[in-house]
Amino acid sequence: MTQHNEAPIRVGLLGAGTVGSQTARLLVEQRDELSARTGRPIELVGVACLDPSKVDAPWIDKALLTTDTAGLCQRADIVVELIGGLEPARTFVLTAIEAGASVVTANKALLAKFGPELYQAADERGVDIYFEAAVGGAIPLVRPLRESLVGDRVSSMLGIVNGTTNYILDEMTTKGLDFEVALNDAQAKGYAEADPTGDIEGEDAANKAAIMATLAFHTATSIDDVTVEGITSITADDIAAATAEHKVVKLLAVVENGEAGVSARVYPALIDENHPLASVHGSFNAVFVHAEAADDLMFYGRGAGGAPTASAVVGDIVTEARHIAQGCTGPSIPLYKDLPKAPIDASKAAFAVRFLIRDKPGVLAAIATEFADRGVSINGVNQDLQPTRHDPGYSGELQQLRIVTHQCDELTLRETVKAVCSLDFVTGTPSILRVLD
Amino acid sequence: MTQHNEAPIRVGLLGAGTVGSQTARLLVEQRDELSARTGRPIELVGVACLDPSKVDAPWIDKALLTTDTAGLCQRADIVVELIGGLEPARTFVLTAIEAGASVVTANKALLAKFGPELYQAADERGVDIYFEAAVGGAIPLVRPLRESLVGDRVSSMLGIVNGTTNYILDEMTTKGLDFEVALNDAQAKGYAEADPTGDIEGEDAANKAAIMATLAFHTATSIDDVTVEGITSITADDIAAATAEHKVVKLLAVVENGEAGVSARVYPALIDENHPLASVHGSFNAVFVHAEAADDLMFYGRGAGGAPTASAVVGDIVTEARHIAQGCTGPSIPLYKDLPKAPIDASKAAFAVRFLIRDKPGVLAAIATEFADRGVSINGVNQDLQPTRHDPGYSGELQQLRIVTHQCDELTLRETVKAVCSLDFVTGTPSILRVLD
Repeated sequence: MTQHNEAPIRVGLLGAGTVGSQTARLLVEQRDELSARTGRPIELVGVACLDPSKVDAPWIDKALLTTDTAGLCQRADIVVELIGGLEPARTFVLTAIEAGASVVTANKALLAKFGPELYQAADERGVDIYFEAAVGGAIPLVRPLRESLVGDRVSSMLGIVNGTTNYILDEMTTKGLDFEVALNDAQAKGYAEADPTGDIEGEDAANKAAIMATLAFHTATSIDDVTVEGITSITADDIAAATAEHKVVKLLAVVENGEAGVSARVYPALIDENHPLASVHGSFNAVFVHAEAADDLMFYGRGAGGAPTASAVVGDIVTEARHIAQGCTGPSIPLYKDLPKAPIDASKAAFAVRFLIRDKPGVLAAIATEFADRGVSINGVNQDLQPTRHDPGYSGELQQLRIVTHQCDELTLRETVKAVCSLDFVTGTPSILRVLD
Repeated sequence: MTQHNEAPIRVGLLGAGTVGSQTARLLVEQRDELSARTGRPIELVGVACLDPSKVDAPWIDKALLTTDTAGLCQRADIVVELIGGLEPARTFVLTAIEAGASVVTANKALLAKFGPELYQAADERGVDIYFEAAVGGAIPLVRPLRESLVGDRVSSMLGIVNGTTNYILDEMTTKGLDFEVALNDAQAKGYAEADPTGDIEGEDAANKAAIMATLAFHTATSIDDVTVEGITSITADDIAAATAEHKVVKLLAVVENGEAGVSARVYPALIDENHPLASVHGSFNAVFVHAEAADDLMFYGRGAGGAPTASAVVGDIVTEARHIAQGCTGPSIPLYKDLPKAPIDASKAAFAVRFLIRDKPGVLAAIATEFADRGVSINGVNQDLQPTRHDPGYSGELQQLRIVTHQCDELTLRETVKAVCSLDFVTGTPSILRVLD
């Protein structure tokens, strides 16, 4: 084994929150093991935070706490950015890169917005940027994509990458709760933030989708390229209808490299209760990868939380420490393909549409005609579902009509739904869910 | 992006069978993409095989085929060993290392027997040895263990790592087949080899368990340290009894770092039909990893097959090519922990034991007394199961008695079963299966 009598690798942590303090714990508690695995000591040289008096982590030497974040970026070999958000995180990461430090980050929003800029800056400066924890928390997903599958062609990825929405949908399913009730419950238990917008509107999942598409297809994909639909319009009736058909509703992040180009989308979808993703509960994440030679792969684990995320962060720190010890760098993020982005309207899917109608003879025929006129083939119809108090615009005279289509393109489907909604016996806002094959 | 005007990295393939020819295909068909991702051309300089006239892979330039395996080891930067078995594979790998080549191998038997010797040889010579394809085929499992989880402490791994036995058990479950019938069927369909011993006796899974334990616990673990039980004694009655209890029988590889030390075992076990491993079918593999900080992780994918295995092999080739281009090496396999091996008798589990008995009053009381006398607590008893023609020693007068225990140590359980079998109304060979929590 390599001797450990060399100069230590200096690690600077930006942020002393949940993930930051757990990362510090692993670095301190496992110092000897990490040194043995790296071949050189790894030393925590500073922890930058806004208010050192509020840091509650007994394993962090108080002398390491600092408010001089930019200064820490200058004196570390590896800067670990755990601040989150776009600014000042972006500035500090660029400062670190310019100073010749490598960067480890768990910041999905930063990478989804400025990833290609940062990857290029690191490449040009000859340093590395690692971000295993930015997608799927503890799940090794970024490294397999960057390295294990480098000799293969990934065609699609699909998964559950947001634990908060997964928890809320679970609660709605198992307890029959309304969305608002389930959300309040999740907030009370600490599974959802006080401002839950980023999770429930799908933005967090969209950030991860952008990072996945960039890595999988070697094509810069930003959050602005992702079509996003959250779960705020999912009602208890949607869930009840799904349950009746032995399906569950899950918020999916889907990236594909199809004939029309690269697409990245986040939407709630109906999946069969026997599908492996149906049994992914609570804060767990799971991602399917389809590659030409490897075929189907799935990765499953904790998508969030201090210790699990810190596990991924420390794995990156050790990998980078080895590179520094050897004077080399890891793989860059090659974006040479620069594939076109597929228009969302061109995407094909099967849909489940739920209309609220005033029932009378001829209603189904009229609706079916609108579908037929536009070439949208109907797979099934269900008129047994009773509307509940959950439905906006409910009155005793109303019924639900649920139509599941075969594969059709999204633009045509939306035009069809619009036409149906203009029929005089259709009322309220229809619910539209994709159905996973 | 790095320019590609440098000398190519020379790759020599040893073996032109299913995996070898698919590896060659990916290297040839994706030459440009692999160069773009590596920053330097990757060139296939030779394919060693016993009889070039038998190689049926139109994408391999006939001029590359050679029977001079040792010579190819001398003139390649990366030697890809896909011969399998212990010798001459071991000699060729050592020849390559001595010549300064790095090695990529999919050879689980070789690594399970001689891994630590080869890792050390590579370390001393300053070259790398990569083997993602040796465990779990296409599934990125070795790289996550070596790198992603390097800052964490893995406490256990548990999984389905042999597709042949998984297929046979699936067929027995869904079609009610006897073991021999299911095996013959698997052989006819090419899912089992003409000599299936290595699969059905658990040796292939045991090789993978040895490699997993070595990596996970930083402790040299060889195939000789693995306690192995195959599936040859599983009968249709075992499967029927499992089905009646909403369980399935799966062949598991289990490695643990417990108080008594490192254990590595392969055995068939009963698992609940809702357990994620219960839905792993056919040739798919899945491995659970439990680590201190990351908590539970699962990896799933194709455990065998030419193209999936080649995907993992090419990922390793590209990773190593990057190292060579940079003049550095990957992480070594640190075996510094050298933990003791736990004795198999010390392992605790719940067991399901099925006895064949001549029923008469007092039988259950007598058997229960033997369990009670040794402190083995009984969780459930089932005497409704009728023996079938499948049972060796069947006659119309015999009945089955099935006892499920609480957690107990293996030695005590085996002594108890031995005592029960010496009772005069017990006949035949009992079936003993572990029950997964």
